Amino acid sequence: MSFEIRDKDLAGRIGRLKTKSGYIETPAFFPVINPVKQDREVPADKIMSIGFNQVITNAFIIKQVFGDRARELSVKKIINFSGVVMTDSGAYQLLRYGKDRIRIEPEEIATYQVEIGSDIAVIADIPTRDDSSYEEAKESVEETLRRARLTIEKVRESDVLWVLPIQGGVYVDLVARSAREASKIEGYGMYAIGSPVTVLEKYGFSKIVDMVAVAKSILPLDKPVHLFGGGHPLIIPLMVALGVDTFDSASYILYARDGRYMTEEGTYKITDLEYLPCECEVCSRYTPKELIELEEKERAKILAVHNLHVINRELKRVKTALKEGRLWELIEERARTHPSLREALNTLIKYVDWIERLDPRFKGDAHAIFLYDTTSYHRPELIRHRGLIRSILKERRGKIILLPGNPDEKPFRNSEIYRVALSRGVISDESHVLVYLPYFNLVPVELDQVYPYAQFEMPLTMESQLINYMTEEISKLISEKTAEAEITILTCSKYAWSKQELFKNLVKQ
Amino acid sequence: MSFEIRDKDLAGRIGRLKTKSGYIETPAFFPVINPVKQDREVPADKIMSIGFNQVITNAFIIKQVFGDRARELSVKKIINFSGVVMTDSGAYQLLRYGKDRIRIEPEEIATYQVEIGSDIAVIADIPTRDDSSYEEAKESVEETLRRARLTIEKVRESDVLWVLPIQGGVYVDLVARSAREASKIEGYGMYAIGSPVTVLEKYGFSKIVDMVAVAKSILPLDKPVHLFGGGHPLIIPLMVALGVDTFDSASYILYARDGRYMTEEGTYKITDLEYLPCECEVCSRYTPKELIELEEKERAKILAVHNLHVINRELKRVKTALKEGRLWELIEERARTHPSLREALNTLIKYVDWIERLDPRFKGDAHAIFLYDTTSYHRPELIRHRGLIRSILKERRGKIILLPGNPDEKPFRNSEIYRVALSRGVISDESHVLVYLPYFNLVPVELDQVYPYAQFEMPLTMESQLINYMTEEISKLISEKTAEAEITILTCSKYAWSKQELFKNLVKQ
Repeated sequence: MSFEIRDKDLAGRIGRLKTKSGYIETPAFFPVINPVKQDREVPADKIMSIGFNQVITNAFIIKQVFGDRARELSVKKIINFSGVVMTDSGAYQLLRYGKDRIRIEPEEIATYQVEIGSDIAVIADIPTRDDSSYEEAKESVEETLRRARLTIEKVRESDVLWVLPIQGGVYVDLVARSAREASKIEGYGMYAIGSPVTVLEKYGFSKIVDMVAVAKSILPLDKPVHLFGGGHPLIIPLMVALGVDTFDSASYILYARDGRYMTEEGTYKITDLEYLPCECEVCSRYTPKELIELEEKERAKILAVHNLHVINRELKRVKTALKEGRLWELIEERARTHPSLREALNTLIKYVDWIERLDPRFKGDAHAIFLYDTTSYHRPELIRHRGLIRSILKERRGKIILLPGNPDEKPFRNSEIYRVALSRGVISDESHVLVYLPYFNLVPVELDQVYPYAQFEMPLTMESQLINYMTEEISKLISEKTAEAEITILTCSKYAWSKQELFKNLVKQ
Repeated sequence: MSFEIRDKDLAGRIGRLKTKSGYIETPAFFPVINPVKQDREVPADKIMSIGFNQVITNAFIIKQVFGDRARELSVKKIINFSGVVMTDSGAYQLLRYGKDRIRIEPEEIATYQVEIGSDIAVIADIPTRDDSSYEEAKESVEETLRRARLTIEKVRESDVLWVLPIQGGVYVDLVARSAREASKIEGYGMYAIGSPVTVLEKYGFSKIVDMVAVAKSILPLDKPVHLFGGGHPLIIPLMVALGVDTFDSASYILYARDGRYMTEEGTYKITDLEYLPCECEVCSRYTPKELIELEEKERAKILAVHNLHVINRELKRVKTALKEGRLWELIEERARTHPSLREALNTLIKYVDWIERLDPRFKGDAHAIFLYDTTSYHRPELIRHRGLIRSILKERRGKIILLPGNPDEKPFRNSEIYRVALSRGVISDESHVLVYLPYFNLVPVELDQVYPYAQFEMPLTMESQLINYMTEEISKLISEKTAEAEITILTCSKYAWSKQELFKNLVKQ
């Protein structure tokens, strides 16, 4: 097995990917290195010292510039990088300059990638353009699949890890077809999701969530999935949560040449900044004024080093959250850095049943789950919980008592209202007591020490929608009951979710 | 004027505070330096090189240990720091050990602070304990005021910047009294809000919001306000938004001695970390394993350097957001790092009319405002907008047409629905057209190019509560109208906020 999954959270994972030049820990970012204009690039050893043991470069450009010489030189010598090297086949050039100007022979470039010593190689796919018609997108799917079948015949015996790109763009049925057919072709160790660069530039995060969720729900889980061009830290947490394992991008240097400074909250023009809100080696050495006054080429390289540090920091933050089972909380936080990410979180919520199935039941140390807003209502733990309650309540007979839960008095049987109800005889040995509370809706009181019913934190002031969700769910659960029961609801006007009028429709039933 | 305000956003500001040893840019953080056990501390020159040109130390301890010698040595030589030095009078020791064990003569310690060369000095106040009864809290307010009046008589002529602490703790009426009376005492250049250390440790952020908002709404705006013990990066954005100018804390080193690693998202035990989610000089040099294996005292100092970098980064981030007029957006994001901060944002929203009055109308470059959730509904720009609409609509006569707004088609008169309505004659020269849209509720179409009606971003999928806010506000505005008008509401089922049934109650009117 060349890809070992070591930790999971949501649909995301931390993995160890084996290549012929060593292991990569995923999620991993591959900075793009231009094999030619190296005086305009961040030096490869600097990239490695920042923390990237892998890069991606372009076999098509190497072939054009170095031709046969590259076979002797090897790609690692050309770009002067001793870590893991991935190569692309020129799909980006094809996208940019069109197939009339760029000619790539799929089998030839594949063999060339083997010969120049790539560790991970992308076949010569036909990327779906962002503005493709449905027919054009379909053609890119079929042609990529045809090439994938042809190419793998030629290079199956090499020790290169081969990457098969999934096409289809914004047409999710085509993405699904592409992923289904790709899964059937043997010999590929990795998949990639086609170039969303221009979608990303327009903050079209929702579309990418659709593409990735559809592809990931079909592709085999034991192989890593790459996202082309996902180079802004903004997108990383959401994509990892959906199961993207590797990223690549040139944006760290392209942005830098344009004087743009990345942060986890968005991008700034360096000329607009009075402070550098970062503590990396660049930002603790320079003031914005000093950076602006640097010679342009020098400034671009230094800004690019900062941009790489931001990407590295966000990856480490994502991995820390993933290990802790807090990836959902990180994407909730990051959803409030741009309204498009907030919309993308809404889109991710459409796929939450699939995410719930992948999300591990047990995640090392159980930590308190943090609940904030209606978005938190869709956490996998809560979806799982509500499924459990549905099955428990359906057949429960006899006396059922619903008590308001107080998030500040846990476990629930320690709460004042429970103790009062007990001492006054409202609760007897025969009664089934359930606590009602937003987010959870209902919790059987006998489970009050089971995770996460005593391990959660929520604000006491909350959206009315969460209270509506609760009353609607209670009403639905009661109407679905198959066993006869006598249900008593106790209310306490101290809590917004326990006002008498909330239950007046139920009383009529 | 010793405090010059240079930028404003919400109730927060960037200022320049003059002291006898130079200027401090606020918001500023004063790391606590222990004047005695310096081998256990981060060296003062390291603190300065991280970016802190000011520290706070304890005159009471200096007096106990160095006595008269400190007059010759000076506080700066004792702690080996050449920047701005603030001294406290031992209030923390009083809180911790009680007034039977700690005796402080207010006038004596004040004179001593002048003599040892403090730049900023806190008088010997009587801090309100977190567990004080109302009577005890009242006593601490009155006694602090009495001492403030006495002390300033003695030291008015010194060139020290004197700090008068506001007491009252969780009793906001006492905080208000304390602030009112303190404002009347001349000679103080700065105020401080009493020690919320134990409240902070229990994540009682809401209580601190109440204390600070009440005090700030009374204290003169042209003087800086300090928050004692606000040393976790979690609290900084919210406190700056309320107008806190300076912070101090020893938590960077206390946490470090306990193996705790700060991040903007919360605190980790270093032994729980597999990654260091930061790119500061410490985190780019060490792995968690290497840190754990260091000798304990050494490890504490190194971790403390990291903790200081996190505080510095968050301050720079807050200042960047403040300059840009995006402080509201930063506190929305940070509110999703702990449910107690989410609750504290709800508490801050109670004071939003006061914040709106302080928030500047014009903030340099107008940027798009980002809207995420119901919390965004309370932004000062929107409160101001809704006040404007109320006054406009009240007296508008004639034909009024309400059209759904599309956030993706701006300015509104460019929208398809507007153009269709115009071409079909639904809108004529005599009609007053208003666009309806969540968050804004109503916008007169003729203002569609005025900031921020064409400069905002919002997700298209949104909380039902926001739509309720909109329909309730429209209904209220119509019922408050004093001038007669014929109102037509056009709906378009494409938008969640434009379904016909939303307006059925209005039709009946």
